[in-house]
Amino acid sequence: MEKKFSQLRRKYEEVAALGSAASVLGWDQRVYMPPKGAEARGRALAALEETLHVKFTAPETGALIAELYDWAQARGGDSFEAAYLRALKRDYDKAVKLPAAFVSEFSLACTAAYEAWHKAKQASDFSVFAPHLEKMLQLNLRKAAILDPKAAPYDALLDIYEPGMTRARLDAIFAELLAGLKPVIKAIAAKSGKVSDAPFRGDFDPAAQLRLADELVKALGFDFDRGRQDRSPHPFTTGGSINDIRITTRAHADWLPACVYASIHECGHALYELGSPQDFEFTPLAGGASLGMHESQSRFWENVVGRSRPFAAWALPLYRKHFPGKFDNLTPEDLYRAANKSAPSLVRVEADEVTYNLHIALRYEIETMLLDGSLKVKDAPAMWNSRMKDYLGIAPANDAEGILQDVHWSQGTLGYFPTYTLGNLAAAQLFNAMKRDLGDTDALVARGEFAPLLAWLGGKIHVHGRKYLPEELLQRAIGEKLSVGPFVDYIKAKYSEIYGF
Amino acid sequence: MEKKFSQLRRKYEEVAALGSAASVLGWDQRVYMPPKGAEARGRALAALEETLHVKFTAPETGALIAELYDWAQARGGDSFEAAYLRALKRDYDKAVKLPAAFVSEFSLACTAAYEAWHKAKQASDFSVFAPHLEKMLQLNLRKAAILDPKAAPYDALLDIYEPGMTRARLDAIFAELLAGLKPVIKAIAAKSGKVSDAPFRGDFDPAAQLRLADELVKALGFDFDRGRQDRSPHPFTTGGSINDIRITTRAHADWLPACVYASIHECGHALYELGSPQDFEFTPLAGGASLGMHESQSRFWENVVGRSRPFAAWALPLYRKHFPGKFDNLTPEDLYRAANKSAPSLVRVEADEVTYNLHIALRYEIETMLLDGSLKVKDAPAMWNSRMKDYLGIAPANDAEGILQDVHWSQGTLGYFPTYTLGNLAAAQLFNAMKRDLGDTDALVARGEFAPLLAWLGGKIHVHGRKYLPEELLQRAIGEKLSVGPFVDYIKAKYSEIYGF
Repeated sequence: MEKKFSQLRRKYEEVAALGSAASVLGWDQRVYMPPKGAEARGRALAALEETLHVKFTAPETGALIAELYDWAQARGGDSFEAAYLRALKRDYDKAVKLPAAFVSEFSLACTAAYEAWHKAKQASDFSVFAPHLEKMLQLNLRKAAILDPKAAPYDALLDIYEPGMTRARLDAIFAELLAGLKPVIKAIAAKSGKVSDAPFRGDFDPAAQLRLADELVKALGFDFDRGRQDRSPHPFTTGGSINDIRITTRAHADWLPACVYASIHECGHALYELGSPQDFEFTPLAGGASLGMHESQSRFWENVVGRSRPFAAWALPLYRKHFPGKFDNLTPEDLYRAANKSAPSLVRVEADEVTYNLHIALRYEIETMLLDGSLKVKDAPAMWNSRMKDYLGIAPANDAEGILQDVHWSQGTLGYFPTYTLGNLAAAQLFNAMKRDLGDTDALVARGEFAPLLAWLGGKIHVHGRKYLPEELLQRAIGEKLSVGPFVDYIKAKYSEIYGF
Repeated sequence: MEKKFSQLRRKYEEVAALGSAASVLGWDQRVYMPPKGAEARGRALAALEETLHVKFTAPETGALIAELYDWAQARGGDSFEAAYLRALKRDYDKAVKLPAAFVSEFSLACTAAYEAWHKAKQASDFSVFAPHLEKMLQLNLRKAAILDPKAAPYDALLDIYEPGMTRARLDAIFAELLAGLKPVIKAIAAKSGKVSDAPFRGDFDPAAQLRLADELVKALGFDFDRGRQDRSPHPFTTGGSINDIRITTRAHADWLPACVYASIHECGHALYELGSPQDFEFTPLAGGASLGMHESQSRFWENVVGRSRPFAAWALPLYRKHFPGKFDNLTPEDLYRAANKSAPSLVRVEADEVTYNLHIALRYEIETMLLDGSLKVKDAPAMWNSRMKDYLGIAPANDAEGILQDVHWSQGTLGYFPTYTLGNLAAAQLFNAMKRDLGDTDALVARGEFAPLLAWLGGKIHVHGRKYLPEELLQRAIGEKLSVGPFVDYIKAKYSEIYGF
């Protein structure tokens, strides 16, 4: 059996290597590719993904999985072999259902949709993107029907990104969450003048922003020998190997947090990926348990740490170093408050912690309506704008800052957005558990000693890679189920103190 | 038959798409990959190349080629179909001989050898690279035996890079060339004080060098919507598509020509690739006829144009713009002479036009001796140093500036170096023909009007892609066979005027 397992591992390694190639091509496409290379890149990626899919779903792989599964589980559920087979079987069972031609069609359509979205956003013209969104919708409905014909389409898709999660549970989660957050938003609105983000507005040289961002993520534990940071319009994390994890950030010359917090956020994702044990390389165990668990890491570093009072105290000298003169007269408290101004805003990636999940709720609702047929693509922008009005009392002036703001749908991912909220919830739970174990994390953060925090997350979460499903992983890590309460409590405590209500 | 041809084209497109992916990964590996990503990248590239090889050499492809070949030729030898089948059959017949396992082994060994070469060069320690060079030698001997068991190994390998060329012809070419150049080198040595390259020595900000390089290649016709320029230790050109051609250059803070001329050189390669007709995309016709023909383009722009008197006149204002103050007191004539200082030197890529081919002769001789067994790897550095002494009267102080200076052998390419000399010869022939057609090219260059030169090369050479073998292409373009005389005449005329002998 050991021999067969080696055989299976060799087979999977080839697939993983091709996946690594596809990741790097995708990174290049969004970071350095010259514009007219787009069409050929689309064809290259589609060919690569089709080849990968055919290789991955080869019947011999299925036969080896079937042969080895029980043998592996008998070695103990936590053993490398058992986890390897579980993770692989999960991926294989999904992939084997998708015909290669469908995978290639999907990939080509995504490339076209991404280009169209990019143009549409620049021109703020939804009509340019609409036919592609329609195509994405139809392809996702087909995909859902292929993956799980008995499930509702949304549940089938959600399971790709957050195994075990369902629309029914999400409906309940969002209901509880919105009920908890709406009073906070109201209370903040009544005291909106109490916090100013003026320190972050002005004229910040983008090159200096990038240098600051590099120094910040390095301090958090990002290893530039095992990764890099570049600029891209939409920040993301990707990787060709657990020793080659790449993050991107953006820089707005007139608003510093766009760069700083995108960078810390993506660094959080990267630290999770970089935390996989070396022997997970090119195995189905490398990476994160789910998108939600991934987001718990990015949001932990971005918000729980990066927007904390001790972080402001530690970071102020760095701000001063990279922007001489600009932060001289500010106190750590000024910086802390500026980093936590909360107000209704149009763009998700720039939303504060309090309002952020309302942006997600909106997208979640639109996705579910598009997929269950109760909303037509052509009516989606109007729906977007009216929900924004309902939830946050504001409406976008155009589609670029409305429905066209996010890249996700153009990449064929529907059912992905709610994982952001799941991550926010888990981050708050992890933080509570971390404080129980480590004691005064504030003192550590204030001294820039992030290593104990990273080591705690590493040991509880990162080291397991994809060994466990997200809810099992959370249970093992902190002995809790996912819940809404800790996040709402965290928000209430933090913002009532800042705004004084 | 048209239907079968479409079928063949679709099959080849998949292969070309994977080749495109491999090119971009290779670019990334040498430009942006974090150091610890190297091992995984090697495995990813090996997997990709093995997959590509298996796909390319599928028996159905061979059957389609056999079925379509005569049909295609009957449409006229110059037709797209005829050329497509000729080029594909040439590539297929070579590839089908190589077992997939060999291709993968070769690729993995190259990745390891490249890493070792890099370390060896940094430490100037040949012993680090020696076992890898030995491995490369053995793999190339196996490759040669597989490709053409009846031919001498060197001829079999040479045919990969320069179809139709043989060692016997190269021996004659180098003999004639060295006989022509040696008196020139002697005459220059007697007047060595007459030319100074002091204007190019000093302190040049690398970032400004890159900006100058961007402006230079843009003026020559490099389209940044269809390509990019980056820095890498060893400049190269590669591409993922005829609309995504990438060049790299290097920058030495104390010597400007390293950047400027590497950039113009690689731009020459890129302009050839970018000149393929759009309908050659993802066909075997995209690209250049051979490495020698490619080098004729890079050396034409680098030397024939870039080191000409009118180019100096045109470029001086750009030098002044990017290095304020540094070129104010210089005349175009100063710049021209500085760009054409000739003297024995150790490093090929920085050698002047006159001595350059002696560097190639040395490498050619060492390669042939390694391959025919008359030289052992361990004795190669001593042979290198003694030949340098023979040819140029100088010897490297260490292996970093001796036998370790070039990347080629670490990438598994033996039989490649002579194509540089073939390119130099062809460039001189093309220049003579261009002047017959265009008249006073000096006046055009002095005004920075490079478009007519590029259009001439485009129409005579680039537009044909890989339709013809290199010698047939040269014959069609200018009605001449490859010859040594025009290059030697060009060198004599140019340098006797500069040095006054």
